This record gives sequence, structure tokens and C-alpha cells, in this order.
Amino acid sequence: MRGYTKSMKRLINELVKMPSVGPKTAERIAFYILRLPKEEAKALSLAILKAKETIGYCRNCHNLTESEICQICQDQGRDKSIICVVETANDVTSIENAGNFKGVYHVLGGAISPLDGISPDKLQIQDLLSRIKNNSINEVIIATNYNMEGEATALYLVDMIRPLGVKITRIAQGIPAGSNIGYADQETLVKALEGRKEI
Amino acid sequence: MRGYTKSMKRLINELVKMPSVGPKTAERIAFYILRLPKEEAKALSLAILKAKETIGYCRNCHNLTESEICQICQDQGRDKSIICVVETANDVTSIENAGNFKGVYHVLGGAISPLDGISPDKLQIQDLLSRIKNNSINEVIIATNYNMEGEATALYLVDMIRPLGVKITRIAQGIPAGSNIGYADQETLVKALEGRKEI
Repeated sequence: MRGYTKSMKRLINELVKMPSVGPKTAERIAFYILRLPKEEAKALSLAILKAKETIGYCRNCHNLTESEICQICQDQGRDKSIICVVETANDVTSIENAGNFKGVYHVLGGAISPLDGISPDKLQIQDLLSRIKNNSINEVIIATNYNMEGEATALYLVDMIRPLGVKITRIAQGIPAGSNIGYADQETLVKALEGRKEI
Repeated sequence: MRGYTKSMKRLINELVKMPSVGPKTAERIAFYILRLPKEEAKALSLAILKAKETIGYCRNCHNLTESEICQICQDQGRDKSIICVVETANDVTSIENAGNFKGVYHVLGGAISPLDGISPDKLQIQDLLSRIKNNSINEVIIATNYNMEGEATALYLVDMIRPLGVKITRIAQGIPAGSNIGYADQETLVKALEGRKEI
């Protein structure tokens, strides 16, 4: 980074740490920030601080929230007897954007991954079991990712939840919407065939 | 953006304005910021403010600087008689990173583009002409981009500088280093052939 001033180097160094931002993009964003009106640069800077300061985790489901209990858990219109278990708060947003799920969530905070040092006790699993025991739950939908860690977590969850006698389901695996069967990988096709439904 | 808290929406809204950052990347960066230790989020926020506050334009060449005159113009080791004219401060960095140019720069602040309302008087062209007139300049290298705006700007500059009797050059066009001739577009090949050198 020759030819950059100190503040510019410092800014680029901070930007390049962000996900999906490589050195070239960091430079481009830095130049964008320099061209911003002062007010807008302040707004960006403040939004970062503010988010970090005000956002915490829901005491109930561990989703992101700015109060003790998140908006979804507070919502009287949601079916509290159906818990959808996801790895991250990001997954909550994805499912909410899909728009047709009316139950509530439980955010694990990741997936079991011995290689990354994430054992079951690092996740909000005990808390999920207490929720299931202490409330009248009709169904637990396991919506962890369909990769090795997500699958291992799903298996572990089934083992833990089964004794509680509640219905457990796993979100379906199959051909993505708008996708071409010819482009699907073998495993997806196998799962899509296994999961076929009469129409 | 359902299911997001207010501060989260605000943060994503600011992030998505950045170049190369779409809605998905903005979400990913927002989650990254939430996971950051408080100190690091503060460092990012401050780097933005600090860059905006301290970085200005060199009075001499309009490159980015944190003092009145930029580091390159201040450098006694640079040949002040060779001015390399570029569109943006970003281009200065690219050429500096290449590492073999020992002259100085003049940053125009863009390229002539009537469609975008950028007429020659919006660029630092008068200032360049004064620099050429008031200093003993041996060569002006025009390093504007090889696109329509950059070429138009180069032609305009030649018209303005020619009467001053100084040597004017244009950076070479040709096959990029490490690139395959089979992949080069026609125009690049034509220019590469025209610019061929005896070896």
C-alpha cells in the first residue's frame, strides 16, 4: 500500500477484515468513504457503533434483539408451540423473508464442529431442552444447514429431544426453486428422489 | 428486511450503499460487525471518521494527503520535471505500487464525460496548465483510462498542452502481463501490433 496516507492505510486495514471484502474492494470502499459528504460518513460510522451498542441476544430464543425479548418472541400472533431451530440469527432472517413460517425460533449460535472447537455445550442446546420441557411444544423443526456440521448438530439434537416425546421434523432437502435438475449434484438428486411426494 | 432490529436495518442500509456491496454482503458484514469485540467495532467506526476528517487534497497535484502538500510532491527524490496525469487518486496508488515511476502526478479528479455532466472545467485542467507554464517540465505523461471518457480527456489535454511546447506522451496500450493473446479483444490486439517494438 505505497502512496497512501496513514489514515487511509488504517481505514483500508479495517475494511479488509470484513467478510467478502478483499484488498481491491477495501480500496474502492475507502475511496467511496472519502468522497462521501461528511454527514454520510458520520452516519455510517455511527450506525456501526449504534448496532454494536444496542443489539443483544433474546433471553428466550437467542435471536438478535434491542430489548430483552425479541420481536418474534413478543409477537402474540406467532405459534409458540412450534420451535424452528437454526444455527444463526442470519438464518432467522432468511426464513422470515420467505414469509410463511408462523412459529418461533431457537438460535443455537452455530453448529457442532469439533475441528473448530465447537462442542455441544458451546451452543444454546440446554436452553432449547429447557424451553421444550417447560412449555407445551407441539413440534421442533430442525433447520440446521445441510453440511457436515449442520447434519451432526441435527443428529445430536434428535438424540437429546427424542426422550422429551415431542414431534421432531427436519426441513426438506431437494432441488432449489428455479434450478435445473441437470445442474443438481448427485446427493441433492438422491435426497430429492427420496423426499418425493404424491401429487 | 423483516425480522431485523432497527439498528440492524440502519447499519445494513448504510453498508449497502458501499461499492461492490450488495444486500447479501451488507447482511454478512453487519453480522460480522455484531460479532466483533467492542474495541474492534470502535476501531472500524473511528477509522472512517478519521479518514474523512484528516484526508484532503494536495494543493499542488490534487492527490490525497494529510498535509497541504502530498508525500510524493514533498519527496526530494522525485523528478519534478515529469508529470504523470491520471484521473483519480486511486490511479496514483496503482502506478506507485508498480514501483518504477519516479516523476510526480497530477490528479484530474475524473474524466470528461458530457453525459455525466463532467465538462473540462470540472476537472483540474487549468491547474495542470499553470503547473506546466510555471515550472520547467520536460514531459507530460497522459495516463487517463483507455475508455471513451479517458480517451476524450487525453485528446482534450493534448490540444491544451501542445501550444506550451512540452513533450507529451501517452501510456502504452497492449496485451496485459500474464495474459493470453487468444483471450485479448480485437482492439487491444490492433493496438498491441501497432505499438510493437524491435527486440
